[in-house]
Amino acid sequence: MEKNGISQAAPKPTGHLLIAHGALAGEMLNVLEFISGERPNFRALTIDHALDVDKARKIVEKAVDEMMGPAGVLIYTDLFGGAPSNIALSMLGEKNIEIIAGVNLPILLRSTTLSEDLSLPEKAGTLRNYGRDNIFIASEVLMGKGKR
Amino acid sequence: MEKNGISQAAPKPTGHLLIAHGALAGEMLNVLEFISGERPNFRALTIDHALDVDKARKIVEKAVDEMMGPAGVLIYTDLFGGAPSNIALSMLGEKNIEIIAGVNLPILLRSTTLSEDLSLPEKAGTLRNYGRDNIFIASEVLMGKGKR
Repeated sequence: MEKNGISQAAPKPTGHLLIAHGALAGEMLNVLEFISGERPNFRALTIDHALDVDKARKIVEKAVDEMMGPAGVLIYTDLFGGAPSNIALSMLGEKNIEIIAGVNLPILLRSTTLSEDLSLPEKAGTLRNYGRDNIFIASEVLMGKGKR
Repeated sequence: MEKNGISQAAPKPTGHLLIAHGALAGEMLNVLEFISGERPNFRALTIDHALDVDKARKIVEKAVDEMMGPAGVLIYTDLFGGAPSNIALSMLGEKNIEIIAGVNLPILLRSTTLSEDLSLPEKAGTLRNYGRDNIFIASEVLMGKGKR
């Protein structure tokens, strides 16, 4: 925040919460920060395979509440239908969140440059499209037909 | 292999090699194996941030050669344009590989059920499409408009 000269009274920015199986979320955040620098409004949660679902839900809920501001929280999960994703899903409707399932690194990099002027659903839509457009086969890109 | 009653003389299956920044590839493979069981024809390489590019290329090349059989090797990278991806790109044309950039967990899960009857480019295309189709916004899926 200080970099942009914004005072401490600025409204809380969008929260970005990664939840995934095992240590995957933490490792994705490590790579994101290696490439793009420290991200104070991002957090990663380890959903341990042995963790009881109710306990896991409490951990996720606490993190969402801590990050929640007027702009809401974007949640990134590894796999639609997986336990981490299902835990996030159980909060849809209760909290001001959007969940992007099937996260890849391009999505996370794009999330660091989102305009705060977009609504939360608009942010989620931008990231989904960017993530889809940035999965490609290298040989096709080199032949100029990688984008669809 | 033993599960399907295939003899040891069966041709080497497609190799699947994950390369990504830091420890990300290893963590993705951990989650894949947690969900889908042990994957003997998958490997993950840690491309350490401090590693010299020439040394990293040798590590990747050695792994590709060890996994190479008639069906070739599929390489998954975290980000097109990142160092791990560029190392793989430098081998296109030299070796029977296809590179899928922007990998997510759905791609890896789908890769475990690919028909060996497909060509290597067909396998890569199937995975790219599946990965794209499995990034979505949970709230839209629940409202029945998540697929495009």
